[in-house]
Amino acid sequence: MAPIKVYADRWSQPSRAVIIFCRVNKIDFEEVAVDLFKSQHLTPEFKKVNPMGQVPAIVDGRFKLFESHAILRYLATVFPGVADHWYPADLFTRAKIESILDWHHSNLRRGAATFVMHTALAPFLGLRPRPEAAKQAEKLLVQSLATIESVWLKGDAKFLMGSPLPSIADLSLVCEIMQLEALGDDTCDKLLGGHKKILAWINNVKKATSPHFEEAHMFLFEVKEQMQSKKNAEAAKHGGLETSSQLKIASKL
Amino acid sequence: MAPIKVYADRWSQPSRAVIIFCRVNKIDFEEVAVDLFKSQHLTPEFKKVNPMGQVPAIVDGRFKLFESHAILRYLATVFPGVADHWYPADLFTRAKIESILDWHHSNLRRGAATFVMHTALAPFLGLRPRPEAAKQAEKLLVQSLATIESVWLKGDAKFLMGSPLPSIADLSLVCEIMQLEALGDDTCDKLLGGHKKILAWINNVKKATSPHFEEAHMFLFEVKEQMQSKKNAEAAKHGGLETSSQLKIASKL
Repeated sequence: MAPIKVYADRWSQPSRAVIIFCRVNKIDFEEVAVDLFKSQHLTPEFKKVNPMGQVPAIVDGRFKLFESHAILRYLATVFPGVADHWYPADLFTRAKIESILDWHHSNLRRGAATFVMHTALAPFLGLRPRPEAAKQAEKLLVQSLATIESVWLKGDAKFLMGSPLPSIADLSLVCEIMQLEALGDDTCDKLLGGHKKILAWINNVKKATSPHFEEAHMFLFEVKEQMQSKKNAEAAKHGGLETSSQLKIASKL
Repeated sequence: MAPIKVYADRWSQPSRAVIIFCRVNKIDFEEVAVDLFKSQHLTPEFKKVNPMGQVPAIVDGRFKLFESHAILRYLATVFPGVADHWYPADLFTRAKIESILDWHHSNLRRGAATFVMHTALAPFLGLRPRPEAAKQAEKLLVQSLATIESVWLKGDAKFLMGSPLPSIADLSLVCEIMQLEALGDDTCDKLLGGHKKILAWINNVKKATSPHFEEAHMFLFEVKEQMQSKKNAEAAKHGGLETSSQLKIASKL
């Protein structure tokens, strides 16, 4: 069988989730880089793969699929080597995982991705940030983090819903939270510092998928460093200099 | 077996999708009204059913579930009487349906629900509308409608992806589009008038689920009428009167 093609940009949190999932589950795949910063997702060529012009997308033989949750479900179902805990056959457990995946779109993802876009990312891309959108997104992000901790990480749960092993929902949500690294250490600390359970859960997902988790996130930390350098250069230009605390690059996550 | 409980408000588009699905598939259920306009979704009692404080939610014996897509998948799987076309067992077809359901959250739903909230609904609820949010949402809504027509309703498709029978994705997306009725006939015409395929598709979903579709949407049209009356009263107070075209209540959909 030919390997599947995974069209991805490692800056994209759902792309990372799919790549980590493939590596952990030894799925034979070829990663095709689609550089979002170079607008390669908007080329006519890529739109033949995914008419939405978004990553990740996969091609398995003649079959094309986009939307990371749909891809994760598909891979978990079609590859017999994938352990059941990723997408359990038990319909009650699966239904609960589905409800987390659905909730994610309009809550954690919407909050986190919009907040990152209108704070850290917009100036880096030369776009006009919208402060009102950032404010609303931050509110949704803060609510979403509190919800994860109080609803799905109750007690001493290692993974969502008290599961001893991770599911595709753990992977998707944790990759989203990792994107907050782009905001810089201080903002990241402010958002996550009070959420001990979330920090422990991120670490559990990282350990369960190591070393693929760290490898897939390397690019994110490289971009973070570039963003920080650009920010410092801007500050220097305007006569100020960042404090040493803001210069930290290494993540606490 | 005791009937399942469906906690719903018929103003809510995903609530309607679940109710229509149950009726069409002869699932034995008890509808528990949760009045969003009276904030009944925020009571401690309802939060025991759904900690997110949102409708729809279901209770099946000891099993509780929220998020309409997760509910539709669960019902389609657990009730053997549900015809395969609603949520096909074929994994390629199912994966494509999943990708539409996932896409929906961050596109059609986000655009339509946010646009309705910040235009028709906010003044009706005494909330401050955010014009910038409405503008961005309208843009996303317009893009989403164009995408549905060009990607999933190509050719003479009766339902999404050229299927001869509807899936849970058809039902969910069409219930969302029906919510645009709340904007009034003129705005609704402006948004949908150019989309002949979408109008035909709405009609196909309606016919395939009749008379439950019309019955579930009655309340939406009642609220629409109230909104229009309130708007007219406001206009009269400020010395103007709505034109006869704006006074139309009956839907063209």
